[in-house]
Amino acid sequence: MRCWAKLGGTRLGPEEYFAQGGRILARLEYDVGDEFLPLGGRGISRYAMHICNAGSAAPEPGGTPLVEAGGMLFKLEYLNPSGSFKDRGAFTGLPPTPSDVVVDSSGNAGISFTLYGRAAGHRVTVYTPRGVSEGKRRLLELLGAEVVFARDREEAHRMALAAGGVYVGHWLNPFFLVGVRTIAYEVYEEGVVPGSVIVPVGSGSLLLGLYMGFRDLMEWGLVDDLPRLIAVRAAGHDELFGIGGHCTLAEGLMIPSPPRGPEIRRAVRESGGWAEGVEDEDILKALKWSLKKGFIIEPTSASAVAVALRLRDRVEEPVLVPLTGSGLKRSETFLNK
Amino acid sequence: MRCWAKLGGTRLGPEEYFAQGGRILARLEYDVGDEFLPLGGRGISRYAMHICNAGSAAPEPGGTPLVEAGGMLFKLEYLNPSGSFKDRGAFTGLPPTPSDVVVDSSGNAGISFTLYGRAAGHRVTVYTPRGVSEGKRRLLELLGAEVVFARDREEAHRMALAAGGVYVGHWLNPFFLVGVRTIAYEVYEEGVVPGSVIVPVGSGSLLLGLYMGFRDLMEWGLVDDLPRLIAVRAAGHDELFGIGGHCTLAEGLMIPSPPRGPEIRRAVRESGGWAEGVEDEDILKALKWSLKKGFIIEPTSASAVAVALRLRDRVEEPVLVPLTGSGLKRSETFLNK
Repeated sequence: MRCWAKLGGTRLGPEEYFAQGGRILARLEYDVGDEFLPLGGRGISRYAMHICNAGSAAPEPGGTPLVEAGGMLFKLEYLNPSGSFKDRGAFTGLPPTPSDVVVDSSGNAGISFTLYGRAAGHRVTVYTPRGVSEGKRRLLELLGAEVVFARDREEAHRMALAAGGVYVGHWLNPFFLVGVRTIAYEVYEEGVVPGSVIVPVGSGSLLLGLYMGFRDLMEWGLVDDLPRLIAVRAAGHDELFGIGGHCTLAEGLMIPSPPRGPEIRRAVRESGGWAEGVEDEDILKALKWSLKKGFIIEPTSASAVAVALRLRDRVEEPVLVPLTGSGLKRSETFLNK
Repeated sequence: MRCWAKLGGTRLGPEEYFAQGGRILARLEYDVGDEFLPLGGRGISRYAMHICNAGSAAPEPGGTPLVEAGGMLFKLEYLNPSGSFKDRGAFTGLPPTPSDVVVDSSGNAGISFTLYGRAAGHRVTVYTPRGVSEGKRRLLELLGAEVVFARDREEAHRMALAAGGVYVGHWLNPFFLVGVRTIAYEVYEEGVVPGSVIVPVGSGSLLLGLYMGFRDLMEWGLVDDLPRLIAVRAAGHDELFGIGGHCTLAEGLMIPSPPRGPEIRRAVRESGGWAEGVEDEDILKALKWSLKKGFIIEPTSASAVAVALRLRDRVEEPVLVPLTGSGLKRSETFLNK
């Protein structure tokens, strides 16, 4: 598959896009092809015909379990090699040749880019808020990232953009979305066509990746409709849908106005979906429910569970809930909240 | 499949064994059947015809990736639902009816038994050394275990045996081995017949489970020989093979004289294998190598990598290395060592 970063009237392939430094908010464009052509194997390389720009020596992401609980279907993205769905995007979101790459992250994306980046011979610098959980910070260092602290998530973004090297952060990098699409393919291959998907939205790369993946399946004539995409936002940290409140626990969702905001709103609207907010008490209740079911996830991921439990009798079935990030990374701080 | 705990001349099924309190060192016996009958799916339930006494509502273990690196094959057991291969054994090692269960563990087994135990309606008490890593302790509590501290691993074992309830710890519990066998089945189904397997040995349940799994494949006429089983021991904490030294990092292997010692030695000898010791410097070097390859594992697991790197040109290929436990659980203490 060929893919491009689309900016107004021009299109840049991955090589050109990253050669320019990668600091441009671009849309992902690709030739979807005539049919779905999964290969062998179980990881993301099974979809080699539908991804571009991939390749790292680290264990490939994908092939995560799909599990029923409480009448809903959970996709265990937290069992990816570094413990989050971001592994899929990092796998397809790195420059094709070894470079100095910079990324801004509240934790998981930095860990994914470090894992796949280091294994592919990149130098990796991660700009992260000072408040990042201790477990995540240590892990970044262990994996060989240079870690630079910022006051908050927004400052981390500004610092990463101002630094030298190639910016790969998923706030802007369109090639990140290429890998995330494969979640939809895997669900389809398990024989499931979701009626609704409950998706945590920070910068929106999970929601947009899923949207594109289901669009691909429609293009190939394999599914008839988009599932309703229900965006989960941290109450009081949302300028996209205007959801007020006082959430403090969903650290990965506290991006009030992500660069791809208009794209996110359009995808949600087109799917017939809407947005829901979560507060800390919803998250804690959902986290407890999740742990009891055997899902070791982090609070940000439990946000989606909270909304799933709220809506389960009121939305189209089957209900799909991607569980985005592992609770193992931050079990040391979990109980201090 | 039917299975029993064998004690001298008598055999007890799982129900009877656990009804007696589970405090007896018993050998696992089972009717292996005439042929290998994998079902659909990718988790351990694929082998429902070859396991007994299974069943928990938590996400099932198994189906972990097999990945090539440095000319060897790594089985990523750390990507099981709670982050270690022990999930397989806990899945098959619990009483068939909800009970008060007690387990002694340096961490991972306690987490696995808590995950699968709580989801199946058991009350779970975990006896663990005071020095257990902070991340593991918090996780046990989050998952709903009652945690009781002991001076060291041996005292934890004595306390668990002296407590009320049903003892399920894998030092004695034969049904734990039932699930571990499936690692061998999965490797075989990926088309790999290992010449050697490098296996970390603490209480020996991984080595014995692999031994039995490969024996089953031989019984079914699918493989000709046992792979050489190379036991990895913490130097200075080994009365099984007499390996001296001063290892401090491989916390999961520091069981000098495990109850199944004679069984372990017999399996190693029968396979034409032997034992190797590791020191801290081997482990740290192997951990660095592993992280660079994208394997986020804990020091105990890196012990096997250390021996694999030491022996890789001198043992029968293909060389299989199970990577037993996730590094995410203890990234907070990693760098303090």
